Amino acid sequence: MVVELISVGTELLLGNIVNTNASYLAEKCATLGLSCYYQSTIGDNEERLMEAVRTALSRSDIIILSGGLGPTGDDLTKEVVAKVFNKEMYMDEYTKEQIRAFFEKRGIKITDNNWKQAMIPEGAIILNNDNGTAPGIIIEENGKTVVLLPGPPDELIPMFEKDVYDFLNKKTPNTIFSKVVKLCGIGESTVEDMIRDLMETSNPTVAPYAKTGEVHLRVTAMAESEKKAKKIIEPVVEELKRRIGSYIYTTDSTVTLEQAVIKLLKKNQLALSTIESCTGGMLAARLVNVAGVSKVFKEGMITYSNKAKRKHAGVKKSSLLKYGAVSSQVAKEMAIGVAKSTKSDVSIAITGIAGPDGGTTEKPVGLIYIACNIHGNVKVREYHFIGNRDKVRNNTVSAALTMVRQYLLEYCNEVTLEKKEK
Amino acid sequence: MVVELISVGTELLLGNIVNTNASYLAEKCATLGLSCYYQSTIGDNEERLMEAVRTALSRSDIIILSGGLGPTGDDLTKEVVAKVFNKEMYMDEYTKEQIRAFFEKRGIKITDNNWKQAMIPEGAIILNNDNGTAPGIIIEENGKTVVLLPGPPDELIPMFEKDVYDFLNKKTPNTIFSKVVKLCGIGESTVEDMIRDLMETSNPTVAPYAKTGEVHLRVTAMAESEKKAKKIIEPVVEELKRRIGSYIYTTDSTVTLEQAVIKLLKKNQLALSTIESCTGGMLAARLVNVAGVSKVFKEGMITYSNKAKRKHAGVKKSSLLKYGAVSSQVAKEMAIGVAKSTKSDVSIAITGIAGPDGGTTEKPVGLIYIACNIHGNVKVREYHFIGNRDKVRNNTVSAALTMVRQYLLEYCNEVTLEKKEK
Repeated sequence: MVVELISVGTELLLGNIVNTNASYLAEKCATLGLSCYYQSTIGDNEERLMEAVRTALSRSDIIILSGGLGPTGDDLTKEVVAKVFNKEMYMDEYTKEQIRAFFEKRGIKITDNNWKQAMIPEGAIILNNDNGTAPGIIIEENGKTVVLLPGPPDELIPMFEKDVYDFLNKKTPNTIFSKVVKLCGIGESTVEDMIRDLMETSNPTVAPYAKTGEVHLRVTAMAESEKKAKKIIEPVVEELKRRIGSYIYTTDSTVTLEQAVIKLLKKNQLALSTIESCTGGMLAARLVNVAGVSKVFKEGMITYSNKAKRKHAGVKKSSLLKYGAVSSQVAKEMAIGVAKSTKSDVSIAITGIAGPDGGTTEKPVGLIYIACNIHGNVKVREYHFIGNRDKVRNNTVSAALTMVRQYLLEYCNEVTLEKKEK
Repeated sequence: MVVELISVGTELLLGNIVNTNASYLAEKCATLGLSCYYQSTIGDNEERLMEAVRTALSRSDIIILSGGLGPTGDDLTKEVVAKVFNKEMYMDEYTKEQIRAFFEKRGIKITDNNWKQAMIPEGAIILNNDNGTAPGIIIEENGKTVVLLPGPPDELIPMFEKDVYDFLNKKTPNTIFSKVVKLCGIGESTVEDMIRDLMETSNPTVAPYAKTGEVHLRVTAMAESEKKAKKIIEPVVEELKRRIGSYIYTTDSTVTLEQAVIKLLKKNQLALSTIESCTGGMLAARLVNVAGVSKVFKEGMITYSNKAKRKHAGVKKSSLLKYGAVSSQVAKEMAIGVAKSTKSDVSIAITGIAGPDGGTTEKPVGLIYIACNIHGNVKVREYHFIGNRDKVRNNTVSAALTMVRQYLLEYCNEVTLEKKEK
């Protein structure tokens, strides 16, 4: 079955708000196994809205409209849909009572225009709004279903979860199930080259998405039940693991790269510290965003000045003079120094030129050194990132997380092998 | 002139990502005086995309398409638009060279599919992409203009600002000019209450936008020339300054709150250090995002553990035991301690419970203490923020910047007065 989303509101056309309803509804519809080919945004204009509803009805089975159910004269979604279906509107006493109660509870005087929200098209299903005054409405006619939802996300989402999801679920014979495989340390086009054959199948489908420093592969299957869909997905995920397993940091859509790193540290009982120059705390901030990080994260330093690099990491004055603050040598000394001063097992050091100023011919903007130390064994890598200051810094943080993950995997395997040999 | 936005990408139809490009482009078009009546989202499907482009051309003067310019077989926006206009595609050598340089600089092997991005429809204007490999494209034909932009926001936004804005601006007879007045330390509804009369005029218009910890007022005028529009705006901005001037940190849309703080520090030759617990470096990262910050930013510490708080800021063990790490007392000791150890004039300390765990009845999730010290004079404030971990942390960083700004203004005025008295 084909679903179509229409978002109504001039504030969307003016760009005053971001349309998060569309992505929310689209994701829910995808999990329901509904195909969504069109999403559109229309202002509070009767003629254009009517045309949009008619077009949608001509090509889709289910239309979900959001917004335009409020009390003001601008709000006309309900009126337009009633007109399209030639339905009379009536004052629904139950809804009227709900609206009265909503205002009374909050001690707010009801203005007359609010009763407009109790007007319902004949024969429609009414959905209670627990978080606002505009009820949701479902109209079914000639095999088409039109769902009207209030625009504010904190009204729309609870209403969808409580009533609409189950309603739509009953209409769909198939379930769609997705698994996200997340990779780091490899580019999108390289991944595609390695899995092109898998991307050409239709059930499951495999689709790549590039994120900053990461590639996500969404494996999606359609089947009668979630269980059967999972069975279709499983061998493809296994094949992905076989081909590009070392780059996969998780197959759980909710897990982030920083969580994967923290998990590795916890598992191996290793304590981490960071020392950052040009990223100024962004790496630490991403790590500290993981709840429960305090078990493995000891300290973070932001040593933007040379003085601070010397003081907190014991970077040698001679190294700063000879190699410069942005150098492989200084990155290495920073990593070793911070591990010593914080008594950490693992440390990550970042030094570089994020721009827009400070670049030279030998050391251009975007030049970054990342040093990763585990128990005194240090690896340093040189990176060249392109883009504005923010992009360089975000890429740097992703590269640092990728690098520490890879190094931890290597190192912890080595430790295991050594132990085995003994 | 009427503009229409078409976002291309199956990931949008599946709800995998939120369409922030649409709101960005819509807002920019509004400031250009272009009317936007339709926004739509289409998947990577040739037939439907072609139909959408044709429909858009039939009712709008300018079409802006975003997404679908990448190297993979899925990406077909450029090919579809070329077909609609019956244009041949050719391999553009300059673009090819740009792509080659982009990969070489990063030391990444170019896969063959990347050359697809150098294919350009005949007669099109090519827009350089400084942040990726897909160039932007403008086609003008029969009085219609079609603009193709890459999907990733960090490529689309710089390209729009650098080339597309001016290009479109030349097409519009009237100029729309906006000035953004940015406020911190005051809520949106309070601002509205204070300037309601100014919000009711039609030229200029005054529209408030709530941002994390900030309120931005956009003052917009339409006139024949930018000069005339500026003249209309000026007295309203002056009136805003008169009424709510102490909350205004800038009237320059490009200036951020952290830039305003750094500017104040530079002007007064004061050196700053930060010490963060629950925000884990986010405050430092925002400050370090300001180019040239090294002149005033000495060091940042991330002291997530009690041990680190004691070591780096000399927080007393007895204070940690008696008051707990999340307390006004500890925040104060952190601020004083870090100023001493780094020999800074100004210091900001943050301690709190960002959640989701760690809250108690007395100290719930969202409880934050921020201490701000200038030359040994410390102010501490208690905050209660609502929302998830990320929201609490972002609000905390904004509150810290707002607090240090206000305190710096007070303090520096005092110093000036003292000097005058002497």
